[in-house]
Amino acid sequence: MLNKRKMIWQDIERIRAEKPLVHNITNYVVMNTTANALLAIGASPVMAHAVEEVEEMVSLARALVINIGTLSPSWVRAMIKAGKAARRRKIPVVLDPVGAGATRYRTTVAQKLLREAAPTVVRGNASEIRALLGRKAGTRGVDSRHVPAEVLDEARALSDLAGCVVAVSGPVDLIVEGNTVIQIANGHPLMARVTGMGCTASAITGAFAAVNPQRLQVAAHAMAVMGIAGEMAAERAAGPGSFQMHFLDALSIIRESDIARRLKIRGG
Amino acid sequence: MLNKRKMIWQDIERIRAEKPLVHNITNYVVMNTTANALLAIGASPVMAHAVEEVEEMVSLARALVINIGTLSPSWVRAMIKAGKAARRRKIPVVLDPVGAGATRYRTTVAQKLLREAAPTVVRGNASEIRALLGRKAGTRGVDSRHVPAEVLDEARALSDLAGCVVAVSGPVDLIVEGNTVIQIANGHPLMARVTGMGCTASAITGAFAAVNPQRLQVAAHAMAVMGIAGEMAAERAAGPGSFQMHFLDALSIIRESDIARRLKIRGG
Amino acid sequence: MLNKRKMIWQDIERIRAEKPLVHNITNYVVMNTTANALLAIGASPVMAHAVEEVEEMVSLARALVINIGTLSPSWVRAMIKAGKAARRRKIPVVLDPVGAGATRYRTTVAQKLLREAAPTVVRGNASEIRALLGRKAGTRGVDSRHVPAEVLDEARALSDLAGCVVAVSGPVDLIVEGNTVIQIANGHPLMARVTGMGCTASAITGAFAAVNPQRLQVAAHAMAVMGIAGEMAAERAAGPGSFQMHFLDALSIIRESDIARRLKIRGG
Repeated sequence: MLNKRKMIWQDIERIRAEKPLVHNITNYVVMNTTANALLAIGASPVMAHAVEEVEEMVSLARALVINIGTLSPSWVRAMIKAGKAARRRKIPVVLDPVGAGATRYRTTVAQKLLREAAPTVVRGNASEIRALLGRKAGTRGVDSRHVPAEVLDEARALSDLAGCVVAVSGPVDLIVEGNTVIQIANGHPLMARVTGMGCTASAITGAFAAVNPQRLQVAAHAMAVMGIAGEMAAERAAGPGSFQMHFLDALSIIRESDIARRLKIRGG
Repeated sequence: MLNKRKMIWQDIERIRAEKPLVHNITNYVVMNTTANALLAIGASPVMAHAVEEVEEMVSLARALVINIGTLSPSWVRAMIKAGKAARRRKIPVVLDPVGAGATRYRTTVAQKLLREAAPTVVRGNASEIRALLGRKAGTRGVDSRHVPAEVLDEARALSDLAGCVVAVSGPVDLIVEGNTVIQIANGHPLMARVTGMGCTASAITGAFAAVNPQRLQVAAHAMAVMGIAGEMAAERAAGPGSFQMHFLDALSIIRESDIARRLKIRGG
Repeated sequence: MLNKRKMIWQDIERIRAEKPLVHNITNYVVMNTTANALLAIGASPVMAHAVEEVEEMVSLARALVINIGTLSPSWVRAMIKAGKAARRRKIPVVLDPVGAGATRYRTTVAQKLLREAAPTVVRGNASEIRALLGRKAGTRGVDSRHVPAEVLDEARALSDLAGCVVAVSGPVDLIVEGNTVIQIANGHPLMARVTGMGCTASAITGAFAAVNPQRLQVAAHAMAVMGIAGEMAAERAAGPGSFQMHFLDALSIIRESDIARRLKIRGG
């Protein structure tokens, strides 16, 4: 455990010192909160979606986060263009397939982004991961945190298919690359009562990807920090409104000792 | 009063137990806060506006909320398509005609949605309701809470014209269906100092519509819970910033006793 | 100092009494927070971007704020149309060239808006101001608060070129009109840890412009109030999440004595 704690802490210190630019093409609902989460952890967020500028913007960035939460065709064109540019320049890409499986359009777009943007990490909930595999998902909204038993197999299958790390959010988060599996049991039920906590996890994954080339670590460290900050916030919260505020504070004030005391990680 | 309190509480318990999916096609300003309000009361929000997916998304939902706060032609097309699909499937529709009367474009779009989406409930302020009737409104922004004397007549006229329930926000909220009138005197002046509290009322109306087929009750219960949560939040707030946070907490922690102690309802 | 404090306070009292409508065409990230900041200071915000309605909307407003944070071609068309309408009607225009210098598209659009919307006040950070002059900017995201030595010369050059007031945010804010220079040393480092504080400064500048025809005062008063509210909020904040909340409260509860005690202004 000692090493893992130290490695997470090193990444946070690097983010805070280097303030890496993270380019987000994300949904309207969470733009403000994910920008604030990136600032709180120490990164520099930029949101830009015009097809006229995404290629140039991503070339300034150290990570690209693509999130299809409120997609439409012109945004999808920009996501693909930015994703391809990131790929050419070897800039890490995080894909959040929000709501894949809920509508055919979302599923199709998410699968297209998986092929063309070649993400380093895909982060979603279990039904979104399943939908990317082309299996029937039965998504019920985008806030479900139900993790079915077959989730590990599906995460492995997607990792193999797309050659990426797959992070599955749930009461226990799974981070999978090929046959390697990490489980993180941090977090708090209040996280499911605030919109965009999954999207925030994807954005924070972008911040870790910007400073650490080990993509399995990137996904695991991001999910661990999300869960730990969630626990810290929940201790002070009276409900989802105050939780949201304390969560941003926690991302900003988190210390190595918080990680040491709280980290619940297995595997890797 | 006993029955009304119990009926409101039953709806809240149903929302918390069933977590109904509420599909929102709403404005950029309030997407985050209305999604959080829906989560706080216990519902499952989804925001989706692409014409490619709205029909499929609304078919998964138990209510549709259409809000024209930051409208543009492609969004209006999606609103109409989703509204018609909801109508065919008998999914309740809440229409929030934000800013109707301020510009001809808004007034025209709001009237078109009134005809084509056949809303179950229209919720707006007095000048928006007036504008839907084609009368001169003199809207001054979208935050005015001034309720003129003729508002009751206009709410009735709109209810008759469109065959829907009309909820008019103001210091005293009016809920009208034909000749039936309910007045709710809950709420707090700080609610007018936070953007999107009207939009939140419309979203919360969607949550109640998802679990209760009685549309007059739906509108009244939603407005009562908004006002009561507003009072609970105001008691702890030092200004509009902290009010906003406590309001989300209040929606989440509200109990039957809060309703019993605070409800100020007449008529119905 | 006495006069300056009183003049700032008079503007705030006027905003609170007159609740001027401020029309914003701004970015997705900050729509909610800038609307709330305008409400907190006492103004009436409206957000509207459809080319079908911006001309009519701006004619109802007492100030127009144009912010290119998440621009795309259809939004730019609306910004130009609204800017020209404001110019014809002598409604003051505030331009926030977010990220100018980061991509060619942003720089080109910002320069075009500078010519066609004829802003009363341009508010940006040092690298955005430089980019408007067509000089190499080296923008690193939109959150940099680094103020290089040549910033005063560049602010003067832009003021001369465009015939407007230039406000440059930084640890010390500069407000420049021709040869007149005002420096404001209020503010707190936490302001750089919350997204959109610069955008909020531009929106608040719109509120002051709505009630005061002296455009140099407008920019100076807005920057002073931002900095002082930031200091008030920082005293109560445990991190950027709680800072954001206390900042809105501070804008709402700020008193003349807060300004008297805290104002750090030179020049003018």
